Amino acid sequence: MFRGEFIMDRLKKQISFIVEIDKLKSIYRQNYLADGSRKENDAEHSWHMAVMAFLLAEYADEQVDLLKVIKMLLVHDLVEIDAGDTYCYDEKAGLDKREREEKCAERIFKMLPEDQCREMYELWEEFEQMETPEAKYAAALDRLQPVLLNYYSEGKSWKEHGIRIDQVLGRNGRIKDSSSRLWEFVENLINDAAEKGYLKKF
Amino acid sequence: MFRGEFIMDRLKKQISFIVEIDKLKSIYRQNYLADGSRKENDAEHSWHMAVMAFLLAEYADEQVDLLKVIKMLLVHDLVEIDAGDTYCYDEKAGLDKREREEKCAERIFKMLPEDQCREMYELWEEFEQMETPEAKYAAALDRLQPVLLNYYSEGKSWKEHGIRIDQVLGRNGRIKDSSSRLWEFVENLINDAAEKGYLKKF
Repeated sequence: MFRGEFIMDRLKKQISFIVEIDKLKSIYRQNYLADGSRKENDAEHSWHMAVMAFLLAEYADEQVDLLKVIKMLLVHDLVEIDAGDTYCYDEKAGLDKREREEKCAERIFKMLPEDQCREMYELWEEFEQMETPEAKYAAALDRLQPVLLNYYSEGKSWKEHGIRIDQVLGRNGRIKDSSSRLWEFVENLINDAAEKGYLKKF
Repeated sequence: MFRGEFIMDRLKKQISFIVEIDKLKSIYRQNYLADGSRKENDAEHSWHMAVMAFLLAEYADEQVDLLKVIKMLLVHDLVEIDAGDTYCYDEKAGLDKREREEKCAERIFKMLPEDQCREMYELWEEFEQMETPEAKYAAALDRLQPVLLNYYSEGKSWKEHGIRIDQVLGRNGRIKDSSSRLWEFVENLINDAAEKGYLKKF
């Protein structure tokens, strides 16, 4: 293959992937927008967290590589294009989540040239493992963002699913693995949500 | 103010801003999603371009600071929260675009602590000026992304507005200020769109 053809072949793969991931805009989550008007989709959720990542980086207890955090947040939900959103309080759906998501990763990441396919896998895997400072911070934002939307939509989605405060405190406790400051804030918000009746106390 | 209070005051400002920008998800653009099912909103558009930024960075003719490009793309449309989306082929609406957007920037960027308010202004201003390698590359993606969605939705939005090929070639010609390779690709795509009847030829 000539160099020009090689580059065009590479670009075509990248463009096919870019068009494919447009589908993330049609994967709806359980939580509503802050104004409660409709449910949020994965693309919007990813955008929101990427902005949060750079505004709140100062609160990560360990220093983070911000570009890596943002890349992780931008792509970590792509595997839901085929697998769908798995509600975080749905224990049964959680059982085969990994399997469904791996199948999707296999299909869509492999649309990319090999080096970028590998980068996607590495970002996704690092996010899922929640071990590095970047992954812990990304996971904290992935929890903080829906808590904010749930709080400002007056617990609309929590109420629909009959969620209790202990479930929300349990899931969001992971925030303190990255940031004691953000956890302090979120813990207060969750307690206040329960006081306001957005969450069940028992 | 004690240090703890100072930090909480700062965090509260940041959180207020983060909740405010949720409104970007309700600002709809003229173009449709690739599958033509509905119009795209600004938050989704910003997310899509941020992913494109890191997949296509190799095609920028001048080297770019990728983190800065992504930050720019994530926030450049926030001023549309009050100003609304101005359709790029609507010359009349374009006349007072800057004024409407400045008003919005004034209202929302100032919700942030001073240092972050300044960063938002700088990112937005740099994007608007289209002079640095980062701004030129961001502007190229801001053109390429809707061309892709218009092409894959079979020109749905172009047809609705009776857009001609010369208008699209004119607007997108700026892509070559950043990347001759991406421009070559887009020029072919636009010509093909006209051949397929997605765009008017005269």
